[in-house]
Amino acid sequence: MQTILITGANRGIGFELTRQILKDDTRIFATCRNPERADALNALASEHTGRVIVLQLDITDDASISATVKAVAAKVNALDLLINNAGIGGDDHARIMGQLISSEVSHVIRTNAVAPLIVTQAFRDLLKKGDNPRVVMISSGLGSLQRTGGASYAYRMSKAAMNMAARVLAYDSAMAGITTVTVNPGWVQTDMGGPQAALKPAESGGALRALINRLSPADAGKFFQYDGSELPW
Amino acid sequence: MQTILITGANRGIGFELTRQILKDDTRIFATCRNPERADALNALASEHTGRVIVLQLDITDDASISATVKAVAAKVNALDLLINNAGIGGDDHARIMGQLISSEVSHVIRTNAVAPLIVTQAFRDLLKKGDNPRVVMISSGLGSLQRTGGASYAYRMSKAAMNMAARVLAYDSAMAGITTVTVNPGWVQTDMGGPQAALKPAESGGALRALINRLSPADAGKFFQYDGSELPW
Repeated sequence: MQTILITGANRGIGFELTRQILKDDTRIFATCRNPERADALNALASEHTGRVIVLQLDITDDASISATVKAVAAKVNALDLLINNAGIGGDDHARIMGQLISSEVSHVIRTNAVAPLIVTQAFRDLLKKGDNPRVVMISSGLGSLQRTGGASYAYRMSKAAMNMAARVLAYDSAMAGITTVTVNPGWVQTDMGGPQAALKPAESGGALRALINRLSPADAGKFFQYDGSELPW
Repeated sequence: MQTILITGANRGIGFELTRQILKDDTRIFATCRNPERADALNALASEHTGRVIVLQLDITDDASISATVKAVAAKVNALDLLINNAGIGGDDHARIMGQLISSEVSHVIRTNAVAPLIVTQAFRDLLKKGDNPRVVMISSGLGSLQRTGGASYAYRMSKAAMNMAARVLAYDSAMAGITTVTVNPGWVQTDMGGPQAALKPAESGGALRALINRLSPADAGKFFQYDGSELPW
């Protein structure tokens, strides 16, 4: 049985990934900021008692991270897979030239790039004891510097910074034995993606599940499209 | 006569660039956090009265940015070139896995990536009235996602995010008419680069001066090596 932790598991791609990964022989620590409002996730946990464990985690709160590590370590000795999925899009003060506010831009980068790095550091000891341990950063095609186009400043900066965090993690001797990759889930019909998005959650989530299951150390440092093809930085 | 503003002009590449650019017919607003301690820069300003104007600016302080814009706008109607040079390297809590602290990582990204974006926004109106207006981001080869190697988490994330800010600025219709580029000054013998660095400040600064002088709108969105060759993201 694989042991997995996923952040932002209450909705969108995080929820769908949790559902998909349950098809495998897995036990999932499914974290979110407000478990008391995570109705769908709580229902999933009730259906799969002991296999889906809902935990409160605010990835921007260091004390919350420590408490979650403690809660996980009280139940398991190792983590095989960490999926850094939680993230935010940012409001107009983080998106639009002329309306940018430094604190809002910083908040998006703090949440989408710094927090996944700090969460990964916090679970490093448990991951080191895992089986084929992997860290998966749920990034975005908007994090690719090849793209052109204005606006979405903070989101795009945050995903470029997240991608860099994944690159450094992948090659850091202090992370030896842990495979870190970046994935683009595609444009998915979620709260963030909107109803016009190209993919249904199950299409992206199903493909990501297959991709994550076949990751090996040879993949460290790569940026994958959800379908397993490689993306340029 | 060209009007230029450069941040972090008191030392390192910023000081050298200020010296080099003075060889052209220019008037330079040379900003730094602590002008009262910027002895070399103050001496340069005394030698070139009216051509080097030292201004206090803390790029992480929004009120300081506003005050500087006001001071500049009181003297000139337009800005032809903005060089976002000021930046920090970060301490071990921003660099090393196992020692990372979220606030320190965030501080480096706030300074090196968010601040240049906010400074650019603040000077946008003056730049729009400039002649061949250019925004130059002084980035780093460590900001390239092609590179492998661990450590320097925050610095590398900050430069990837800065590069993305430059990309979005370059293609944003709200920045129409302003050419934004990213440059890598190379590894230079400065306080940050250390004495073993490959280049003397004058080599990097002289080459950057030539590069900046020949920038045109066709260069928008590019990542240049100091010698004018293009770098991969």
